[in-house]
Amino acid sequence: MTAATRIEHDAFGPVEIPAGRYWGAQTQRAAGVFEVGTERFAACLLHAFGLQKIAAARANARCGALEAALAGTIAAAAGEVSRGLFDEHFPLTIWQTGSGTQTNMNANEVIANRANELLGQPLGTKSPVHPNDHVNASQSSNDSFPTVMHIAAATELTKRLIPALIILKEALEDRARAFAGVAKVARTHLMDAVPMTMGQAFEAFAWQVSSGISRLQDALPRLLLLAQGGTAAGTGLNAPENFDTFFCEEIGRLTGLPFAPHPCKFEGMSGHDALVELSGALNVVAASLTKIANDIRWMGSGPRCGIGELVIPDDGLTSSIMPGKRNPTIAEVVAQAAMQVAGNHVTVTMAGASGSFELNVAKPVLIHNVLQSIRILSDSSLVFANKLVAGLDVDRERLESNLGNALLSVTALNPVLGYDKVARITRTAVERRIPPREAAMALGYLDAEAYDRLVDPIRMAKGGS
Amino acid sequence: MTAATRIEHDAFGPVEIPAGRYWGAQTQRAAGVFEVGTERFAACLLHAFGLQKIAAARANARCGALEAALAGTIAAAAGEVSRGLFDEHFPLTIWQTGSGTQTNMNANEVIANRANELLGQPLGTKSPVHPNDHVNASQSSNDSFPTVMHIAAATELTKRLIPALIILKEALEDRARAFAGVAKVARTHLMDAVPMTMGQAFEAFAWQVSSGISRLQDALPRLLLLAQGGTAAGTGLNAPENFDTFFCEEIGRLTGLPFAPHPCKFEGMSGHDALVELSGALNVVAASLTKIANDIRWMGSGPRCGIGELVIPDDGLTSSIMPGKRNPTIAEVVAQAAMQVAGNHVTVTMAGASGSFELNVAKPVLIHNVLQSIRILSDSSLVFANKLVAGLDVDRERLESNLGNALLSVTALNPVLGYDKVARITRTAVERRIPPREAAMALGYLDAEAYDRLVDPIRMAKGGS
Amino acid sequence: MTAATRIEHDAFGPVEIPAGRYWGAQTQRAAGVFEVGTERFAACLLHAFGLQKIAAARANARCGALEAALAGTIAAAAGEVSRGLFDEHFPLTIWQTGSGTQTNMNANEVIANRANELLGQPLGTKSPVHPNDHVNASQSSNDSFPTVMHIAAATELTKRLIPALIILKEALEDRARAFAGVAKVARTHLMDAVPMTMGQAFEAFAWQVSSGISRLQDALPRLLLLAQGGTAAGTGLNAPENFDTFFCEEIGRLTGLPFAPHPCKFEGMSGHDALVELSGALNVVAASLTKIANDIRWMGSGPRCGIGELVIPDDGLTSSIMPGKRNPTIAEVVAQAAMQVAGNHVTVTMAGASGSFELNVAKPVLIHNVLQSIRILSDSSLVFANKLVAGLDVDRERLESNLGNALLSVTALNPVLGYDKVARITRTAVERRIPPREAAMALGYLDAEAYDRLVDPIRMAKGGS
Amino acid sequence: MTAATRIEHDAFGPVEIPAGRYWGAQTQRAAGVFEVGTERFAACLLHAFGLQKIAAARANARCGALEAALAGTIAAAAGEVSRGLFDEHFPLTIWQTGSGTQTNMNANEVIANRANELLGQPLGTKSPVHPNDHVNASQSSNDSFPTVMHIAAATELTKRLIPALIILKEALEDRARAFAGVAKVARTHLMDAVPMTMGQAFEAFAWQVSSGISRLQDALPRLLLLAQGGTAAGTGLNAPENFDTFFCEEIGRLTGLPFAPHPCKFEGMSGHDALVELSGALNVVAASLTKIANDIRWMGSGPRCGIGELVIPDDGLTSSIMPGKRNPTIAEVVAQAAMQVAGNHVTVTMAGASGSFELNVAKPVLIHNVLQSIRILSDSSLVFANKLVAGLDVDRERLESNLGNALLSVTALNPVLGYDKVARITRTAVERRIPPREAAMALGYLDAEAYDRLVDPIRMAKGGS
Repeated sequence: MTAATRIEHDAFGPVEIPAGRYWGAQTQRAAGVFEVGTERFAACLLHAFGLQKIAAARANARCGALEAALAGTIAAAAGEVSRGLFDEHFPLTIWQTGSGTQTNMNANEVIANRANELLGQPLGTKSPVHPNDHVNASQSSNDSFPTVMHIAAATELTKRLIPALIILKEALEDRARAFAGVAKVARTHLMDAVPMTMGQAFEAFAWQVSSGISRLQDALPRLLLLAQGGTAAGTGLNAPENFDTFFCEEIGRLTGLPFAPHPCKFEGMSGHDALVELSGALNVVAASLTKIANDIRWMGSGPRCGIGELVIPDDGLTSSIMPGKRNPTIAEVVAQAAMQVAGNHVTVTMAGASGSFELNVAKPVLIHNVLQSIRILSDSSLVFANKLVAGLDVDRERLESNLGNALLSVTALNPVLGYDKVARITRTAVERRIPPREAAMALGYLDAEAYDRLVDPIRMAKGGS
Repeated sequence: MTAATRIEHDAFGPVEIPAGRYWGAQTQRAAGVFEVGTERFAACLLHAFGLQKIAAARANARCGALEAALAGTIAAAAGEVSRGLFDEHFPLTIWQTGSGTQTNMNANEVIANRANELLGQPLGTKSPVHPNDHVNASQSSNDSFPTVMHIAAATELTKRLIPALIILKEALEDRARAFAGVAKVARTHLMDAVPMTMGQAFEAFAWQVSSGISRLQDALPRLLLLAQGGTAAGTGLNAPENFDTFFCEEIGRLTGLPFAPHPCKFEGMSGHDALVELSGALNVVAASLTKIANDIRWMGSGPRCGIGELVIPDDGLTSSIMPGKRNPTIAEVVAQAAMQVAGNHVTVTMAGASGSFELNVAKPVLIHNVLQSIRILSDSSLVFANKLVAGLDVDRERLESNLGNALLSVTALNPVLGYDKVARITRTAVERRIPPREAAMALGYLDAEAYDRLVDPIRMAKGGS
Repeated sequence: MTAATRIEHDAFGPVEIPAGRYWGAQTQRAAGVFEVGTERFAACLLHAFGLQKIAAARANARCGALEAALAGTIAAAAGEVSRGLFDEHFPLTIWQTGSGTQTNMNANEVIANRANELLGQPLGTKSPVHPNDHVNASQSSNDSFPTVMHIAAATELTKRLIPALIILKEALEDRARAFAGVAKVARTHLMDAVPMTMGQAFEAFAWQVSSGISRLQDALPRLLLLAQGGTAAGTGLNAPENFDTFFCEEIGRLTGLPFAPHPCKFEGMSGHDALVELSGALNVVAASLTKIANDIRWMGSGPRCGIGELVIPDDGLTSSIMPGKRNPTIAEVVAQAAMQVAGNHVTVTMAGASGSFELNVAKPVLIHNVLQSIRILSDSSLVFANKLVAGLDVDRERLESNLGNALLSVTALNPVLGYDKVARITRTAVERRIPPREAAMALGYLDAEAYDRLVDPIRMAKGGS
Repeated sequence: MTAATRIEHDAFGPVEIPAGRYWGAQTQRAAGVFEVGTERFAACLLHAFGLQKIAAARANARCGALEAALAGTIAAAAGEVSRGLFDEHFPLTIWQTGSGTQTNMNANEVIANRANELLGQPLGTKSPVHPNDHVNASQSSNDSFPTVMHIAAATELTKRLIPALIILKEALEDRARAFAGVAKVARTHLMDAVPMTMGQAFEAFAWQVSSGISRLQDALPRLLLLAQGGTAAGTGLNAPENFDTFFCEEIGRLTGLPFAPHPCKFEGMSGHDALVELSGALNVVAASLTKIANDIRWMGSGPRCGIGELVIPDDGLTSSIMPGKRNPTIAEVVAQAAMQVAGNHVTVTMAGASGSFELNVAKPVLIHNVLQSIRILSDSSLVFANKLVAGLDVDRERLESNLGNALLSVTALNPVLGYDKVARITRTAVERRIPPREAAMALGYLDAEAYDRLVDPIRMAKGGS
C-alpha cells in the first residue's frame, strides 16, 4: 500500500482503495471485474439513491430497527449524496450485475464512510456505521435498486420532462396565435391541397405535445408504487413490520411525490412493466416531436428552392464552405434525440421482458435508457421551444405566392360551378402553367371579384365553403 | 369483355370488372397498380368501414345533406358490410396509398353497388346511389380512414383483447389460490434464494396482467376521439355543420363506445399518436406475457433434468422422434406472439412518426400492425389461459426436494445463530454435498425440531423470520 | 362421423378429419389447440417443404434407409406439394410450437396420404407409406424445419428479391442517364446548396440499390448451410451415414443452389444467426429504399407549392374530394413496406436471440417475418421500378427557375472575387429578394457573360470551379 | 473579459472563450446553442478526426493546395489530437447539427490553435494557420464527418472488436476441448432430450462467434470507401484533382487499413447504409452472445434447484442479504450489452433511413450508437472470455445424475426393442418415478450390461445408435 491508497476488508479479504475515495471493498472489486464501456448512471439516479437511504434510515428508526442517532447520521451522509456532493465517488459503469447490486453496495459504502467521518472516524472503519448492517438495514439490492429506479424516473418525469413539454406547448400555442390569420396551402401526400392557416398547423403541434403530457401523467400511478420492503425475493423476509409504509411516507416527504408501497412486491422486483410503460409514453412523445420538427424543417426549407414559408431564427452557426448558409440545426437535434428514444425503447422492452422468476436482471441497462430518454427529450424540447419555435416567423410573400398557385383552392367553387367546370379550370391552369384564378377568368366562368369572394382561404380554413 | 366481366367507368374511362364482384372502377385500377404482397386488412377493419358508412349516412340525413330514404338504403347496404357479408369483395392488400384511399373507395363502391341492387338496379349503375356523391358524402378518405382505424382498434381492444386478458388474469388468480400453500424456493439471478410460495409467483403474474388491462384502458380516451368531419385536410371544408357531432352519436349507438369529435381534427389526420400509444400499451402486455410464459416454461422444464416444479397439461402433440416427449407448445406460441407485437410496435412507431404536414401517409401499415397485435395477443392469451394455465399442476415431490436442498433457506437462522455460524452451515453443505438441514445438525448448532421450526418456508414466505 | 369426415389415428387415438383433406391426425389436433391469429406460412415455405421431402426421400434411398420404389412415390407426392397443388391442405397458422413441428407433421401427413393414394390406397391408411416412418425417415422436425427455412429464404432471395432489385437498379440507372445533363440545385439540411445534376442524384440511388444486392449476396454463404442430418438435437442420432451430404446434393439439384451440410448442426438448430443476418441485410435495403422513395416524393412534391422538380407518372388513382389531385402513391407503398421490414427485423432479432440449449423455439415467427420482408421488398421494388421510376420526368422550367434562385451557386465565384465580395452578393440577393446573378451585376462585380461562364451549374456539378 | 477568458472572432463577431481552451468561436457558440444531454463522442472518434486532418493536410500538400511547411505543422498538431492529448478540448455533446459540423469546426479550431502555438503564436490568432482556410482546406463538414465516421468504425471494428471476439471464440473452443468427453442430456423446448456432450454445446457457441467475425468482416469493404473529396454536396466542388486518392493513401498509411475513394460520393454523404449494415452485423453478434450467455447462465443455474451442470467461477461479488450466494454477474452484463446493441440498431436504422437529398443529417446519433455498440460488445466479450468462460467447470456428479434420469436416452433402444417396448419403458419410468435404466430392467427387456452398451451417451452424441 502506498500513501495514495488505504485498505478495506470484506468477506473475501483485503482490498486496496485510492485514498480520498469514499467507496469500499465491494465497489473496488466490482470495478476490477466489470471493465466494460464508459456509460455512467445519470447523476439523478445517484441522487435518488441518497434519498432512498435517507428514507430507509428514518423508516428503520421508526420501526426500531436502527437507533435514532445512528439513523440521523446515516441520513445526514445520505443527504450529501442526494445533493450531488459525492457523484465522483461512484466509479462503476452501468455494465454490472443485472440487479444493480454493485451500485447499491457503492451507495452503502460511500454513505457509511461519510457517516463514520462525520462521527470522527477515518474512512474504512465500518464502525459505528456498517454499510450492510446499518445503511442497508431491512433492505436488499433487489428491492432498493428498483425503488431507486422509480424514484429517479418519477422525479425526472415530473420535475424535468413535463415542465419542459409545457414550455414547448406554450411556445407552439403562442405561434398558433401569432399565425392565426396567416393563410397557407395545406399539403396531403406532400401535394398541394386546400387552404388552411399556419395557426392551425401550430395548433395541431401543440395538441400533440399536450396529449404527450397526458400520456406521461397516465404512467405515473404505476410508477409511484415502490418495491421497497420486498427484500431478497419479494416476501419481505427480515424487513420489520410497516417498514414499507414508513419508507413511502419518508420518501414522499423528500420528493413531494405520493409514493406508495407496491401491493405485490414480487411484481415490482421481477418485472419492470411500469418503466416499459413509461418508455412507451416517451416513445410517443418522440414520435410527436419528430413530426413537429420535420414539418418545421420542411416549411422552412429552401429558402428559395424549397417550401420557404417559415423563417427559422438564426443560431449563429453556419457552413464553412457555403458562407451565410443557415440550417435548421436545432430541429435536427430534436429529430436525432427522438431516434435515440425510439431505439432506447426497444432496449427497455427487451430488458423488461427478460426477467426470470423473482428478479429481473436487466435493471441497470433498463433504467439507464429510460433516464437518458427523459433527459434528451427534456433538453431538446427546451432548446427547441426557446431557441427555435419562439423565434419562428413566416414569409408572407412566399405564402401568398404559393397559395395563389395552389390549384385545388378551386375546390371551393364546386357548389357554384359544378365538378366538371372546376376540373376544366385546373386542367387549363396546368396546361398553361398559370394560376387557377387566371384560368378561371380566361375560361370566362367568373370575374375577379367573384373568384376572390368564393375562393377565400381564410373562410375555407374555417371549413366554410 | 366476356360474360364473366362487366364494365364500370370512372373519371379515367372504362374498366373491366369480374362479374358478381361488388367493387368498382377505382378498386379495380388499384388492384392493377399495387401488386404487392398478400396481406389483407383484418376483417374487423372492413366491418368498421361498414359501421362508419352507416353512421355517415345517418349523420348526412340529419344534416340534410342526404335524402332520408337514400341514406336508409346506404345504411342498409353498409350494414351488410359491417356484418361481414362482403368481406371477399375487398380484394386489395394493405400495400396501397398511405391514406387508405383505395380501401375507402372500395367500401364506397361496394356499398353503392349493393344499395343500388337493393333498389333494383344492376351492379355498376352508380344510380341512384353514387359511391362518391352519396356513400362518401361529407367525407374524404383523409378523415374517414383514420376514423375507421379508431373504430376498429377501440372495438377490438374493448371487445376482444380486454375480455381475453380478464380470462387470463382469472386463470392465474385461480392457480394462485390453488398453490397458495405450496412452498417453493425463490430464484434470483436464476440462483436458489429464500423460500416463498408458488401462489405468490402466480399472484405476481396476475398483477402483471391486471396492470396491463389498466394500461390498455388508459389509451382509450384518446382513441375515442374521431377525425371524422375534418374532410380533406382537417378544416372540414364541405362538411355540413354538426356533421362530426351527429356522426359520433350514431357511431356510439352502433358500437356502444362513447366516441367524440376530435377537437383538433388536423392532429387526428396528420398524426396517429393515439395508436402509437395503444401499440405501446400492447407492447407492455407482450413483455408481461413473455415473462409469464417463460417462467411457466422454465418451472415446467425437465421434467427430470430441469426445474420440474410445474406440470404442464398434455396437449396431445408430441415429437416424431422421441416418443412421449411433451413440450410447452402453447407457452411458445405466447412468446412468439409477443415478439411479433414488439416488432410491430417498431413499425407502428416509425409509421406514426412519419407524417408530413396535414396527412400521415402510413395509415394502412400502421393499423394493420396494431390490429394484428391485438388479435394475436387476444387469441394467445385465451389459449394460454384455457389450455395451459387452467390445467397447471405442481410436482410436490420435486418442490420439496428442491426446497430441502436450497442452501439459503438458512438465512432465517441469522437472528438466532448469527451470520458467521450460518455461513459455516452453507459452506459445510456445499463441501459435503448435503442439505443445509443435515449440515446444521452435523455442526451441532441445533436439532431437527428447532431447525424445522425456525426454517419454515411458509412462514418465511410471509416475510416472518 | 358424418359422410363429410373420415377417421385417422395417432398415438393418442382417433381423430375426425374433413373428407377430402389430405392432412392427418396430428395436424387436426394442432388445429384444435392453436386457435391463434390468421397468419399462414407463405406458400414458398410449403413448396420448400415439398422439395425437402423429395430430397430426403432420395437421400434415404441412396443410404439404403428407404426402398427405392417407396422413395420414388414419396418424391412424386412431395413434388406435387412443391408445385403448390396442396397449399390448401396446410390449415395451420404460424402460431404453433416453436420448432415448427406441426407444419412438418402436416407435410408428412399430406405427402403420405397422397403417396398412398398414388398407390391406390384411400386417405388415412398410412400404408404402405407412413408419415413418420417413411416420409420423415432419418429426420426430426428439429432439423427439417430449419432446413426448410433456409431453402425457402435462399430461394426467395435469389429468385425473387435480387432479380427485382436488379430491375430497380437498372431503372434508376436509366433515369440517371436520361437526367445526366439536367442541372439542379443540391440540398443539404433541406436547404439550397450548390449545383449538381439530376443524373447524379439517381446515380446515388442506383448505388444504394446495387450495394444492397451485394449485402444480400454476402448473407448467402451462411444461408446455404443446412442443419438436415442433425435429427433431434444436432448429434444426428438415427440418421444414416452421409445422409446430410446426399440430401444437400439432391436439394442442390432441385433448387440450383449450392447447399452444403452445416459443419456444426447444433448451431443450425439452436440458433438462427444466418437468418438474423439476412434480415439485417433486408433492413439495410429497406433503409435505402426509404431514402430513395422519400427523395423522389419530395422532388415531386407540389406540384407548385413544393419542390416540383420531378414529375411522377399518373397511376390513374385520384382523390374523391379534390378532382385531379395526383399523389405519389407507389412511393408511399415503398416507404410503408420498408417500415414493416424494419419492425419485422426487430421481431427476427428477438426470435433469433431467444434460443435455449439445443433448440431455438421461435422458428415459425422468425421465418414468417423474413419471408414477408423478402416478399414485400421484392414486390414493391418491382412496382416502384416499373410503374413509377421508369416513368419519371423532370420539370425543366422549374429546375431552371430554382437553380437561378439558388443563392449559393455563387460559391463558384470565391476564387475570382474572394469570400467577402461573394458574401456581399448573397446578402444583397436576400435583402432585395432577387436572384444572385442579378445581385452580382447590380453590385458591378462582373457582367452577365462572365457570371454565366463562371457560375456554370454543369461544370460545378463535375467538381470544377 | 476576465483573466480566465480570451476573445476569438468569427463571421458573427467576438466570442469569449475560457483561457487555456483550444477550441474557438464556432465551438463556443455551439456549446451555447445545444444544451442537450451529456453524451460525448467516443474518444476514438476524436482521435479519428486527428488522423483525418493529418491525411487531409498531407493530401493538400501533395495537390499543391497547402504549402508543405504549413501542412507539416497542421499534421503535427493533428497528430496530438489523434493521440488523445486534446480530448478535453471537445466540449460538445453529440446533440448537435446532423452533419456533425460543430465537431468538425471544433477539430479545425483546436488544431489551428495548437499549430499556431507550435509556431509561437498565442491561441486565437488564426494565423498563420486558419481553421477553415487551412485545417479544413479542400473539405466540407459534409464529407469530412462521414469520412471520420468510417475511419473510427473501421478502426474500432478491426482493432478492438474482432480481436476481442477471437479471444472469446478461443476460450469457447478451449472449453469445447476440455468438455469433449463430458456427456450431458440435450434439451429441446427446455425439455430433456437425447444425450450429447458438453463439448458439443461449446462448439456450437464457438461457431456462432466465429460466424459473427465473418459477418463483421463482410461489412468492411463498404466501410473502407470514403466520402472525402465530395466537399459540400458530393460533386467535389473546390477540391483539387486527386485529393481523394491522395487522402486515402495517407489515411491508409496512418491506420493500416486499405481505405479507397468512394466511387459515388453522393451516396457516402446522403446515406449511411454501410454503417447500418455494420450495425446489422453487430446486432447478429449481440443475438449470438445473448444465446451463449443465457445458456451458460441456465446450465449454471441452481446450484441445486436449477440445472447446475456448469460451475461458474467466483468473481468475489456476493449478496448483502444471502451470504455466499454466487450469481452469474458477467453473463448478465453480456445480456444487457446485447439489449443495448439491439436498441442502438433500431436508432441506427432510423437514422440511416432519414436522409434527404444530398445529406443525411443524423450523423452524430448514428455514429455514436455504432461506436457504443462496438465498444460494449468488445469489452463484454473480453470480460466474458477471460473472467467467466475461461474458468468454467462442470459438475460431473450432477451431469451423470441428470443423464441417468433422462427418459429419452432410451431412444437408442428403438432399433433393438422397437418403438412400442421403448414407449413402455418410458411410461414405467414416469409412473414409478425411477430412472429409465431401472425401468428397462424391471420390465425384463434387457440386462444392465446390454442396457449400458446400447444406451451409451458418448456414442449417441456422435450420432451412432
